[in-house]
Amino acid sequence: MESNDPFDLRAAFRAGWSPRSTARLAPGRVQANFVALPAASALDFAAFCQRNPRSCPVLAMGAPGERLLPGMGRDFDLATDLPRYRVWRDGAPAEEPTDIADLWRDDMVGFLLGCSYSFEWALGQAGMVLRHWASGSNPPIYRTNIPCVSAGNFAGNIIVSMRPLRPADAIRAVQITSRFPRVHGAPLHIGLPELIGVDLDRRDGGDDLSPQADELPVFWACGVTPESALRAAKLPFAITHYPGAMAITDLWNADLAE
Amino acid sequence: MESNDPFDLRAAFRAGWSPRSTARLAPGRVQANFVALPAASALDFAAFCQRNPRSCPVLAMGAPGERLLPGMGRDFDLATDLPRYRVWRDGAPAEEPTDIADLWRDDMVGFLLGCSYSFEWALGQAGMVLRHWASGSNPPIYRTNIPCVSAGNFAGNIIVSMRPLRPADAIRAVQITSRFPRVHGAPLHIGLPELIGVDLDRRDGGDDLSPQADELPVFWACGVTPESALRAAKLPFAITHYPGAMAITDLWNADLAE
Repeated sequence: MESNDPFDLRAAFRAGWSPRSTARLAPGRVQANFVALPAASALDFAAFCQRNPRSCPVLAMGAPGERLLPGMGRDFDLATDLPRYRVWRDGAPAEEPTDIADLWRDDMVGFLLGCSYSFEWALGQAGMVLRHWASGSNPPIYRTNIPCVSAGNFAGNIIVSMRPLRPADAIRAVQITSRFPRVHGAPLHIGLPELIGVDLDRRDGGDDLSPQADELPVFWACGVTPESALRAAKLPFAITHYPGAMAITDLWNADLAE
Repeated sequence: MESNDPFDLRAAFRAGWSPRSTARLAPGRVQANFVALPAASALDFAAFCQRNPRSCPVLAMGAPGERLLPGMGRDFDLATDLPRYRVWRDGAPAEEPTDIADLWRDDMVGFLLGCSYSFEWALGQAGMVLRHWASGSNPPIYRTNIPCVSAGNFAGNIIVSMRPLRPADAIRAVQITSRFPRVHGAPLHIGLPELIGVDLDRRDGGDDLSPQADELPVFWACGVTPESALRAAKLPFAITHYPGAMAITDLWNADLAE
């Protein structure tokens, strides 16, 4: 697939193409975490997102049954236009289909949540080169000791991703990502991981990466937080994107800057 | 002196009142570092400030001989309206008069440079309580290994002040002070002092203050940098404010926010 056009890419996903990661696709466009769940629990989830905006910044939210969310992309069908999905049953991953049209129900409510790809793009535009880019890996992920504000059965501690940055870049990264509150915004913590219950040697996801002597660990709230809240809620049924295979919207990252 | 009005305070200074520090006077108003020097060296100094805006942010600059700088304050006479001055001869402090009307010359050029009191005010407005406030002391000051961009004979390394902040406050402080480029702006460094040639136990000025276990050292470019450049230039003649006895302008700190 040569195109960088989100419409073309979504059409290719719909036709069955299922790349493992969307990280390098459609440069400059907003990619999003996807969550869909029955209306019975969607209101609690909406409240959970509203109360935890750093972890769960809502880019778009559907009305029950809506497969097209306004403003997210031309003909963007949530049930067919992601590369792969993860179906959750009783709070655990069950299936990983490339299409959920058969599973979609009239009461399903879809959410698109901001993703770190967007703020990483902004850091790249400022000339930073994040170390995990070179290896094509993911930044390490940690569960903090900071509780989310719960809503209904949605609860859990904030999950963070960590990027090692030299101090001057860390300061610049605070400035830049503060302008992007819809995609996790400013870092949640910097420099002293033990204060947020994190041992850098014991990650809870992502890939291995440690700060060097001239770097500080910089932590951002992470889109894995809502997934963790889904597990905690033990919903009978929910659907998300497959990790790394995000929803590609028509929006430009640059347009998200406040 | 009960008044918080800058005009009244400057009149009191002119009449001979000479408080040791202006730190608690005229809350919310912009206070400034003062430098005056003969026109022969003023152009180099202006270039030095322009090239090192984090250390030497120019709020106002006079034409030769001008004792009143436009926009800085009603009837604000640079030669009489500071609590105390320091006269420099051949690059070293010589006298400390409360009035420089006799020393003022037709070729003197005055500069007012932004001061940390303004960004500390902004941090206070956001609910932060800086530790050196309680003791009425000054933050510790260090000479870094980062050279200023020289101009003429004005040169030297950047001098920084250090404030210990908890990580969440450090992030907030970056956000807040970034909005105030005319009063030193964002921190220059955070967290790893050895990278900028600083040993926290060996300060070059200010008072003793160390980060606690839950704090990071946060460093801002400091108004002592131009004083250090004055020493380096070994000018036959220059005048500054006496340390801590700043120029009090009519400007509001809040109005400096970008």
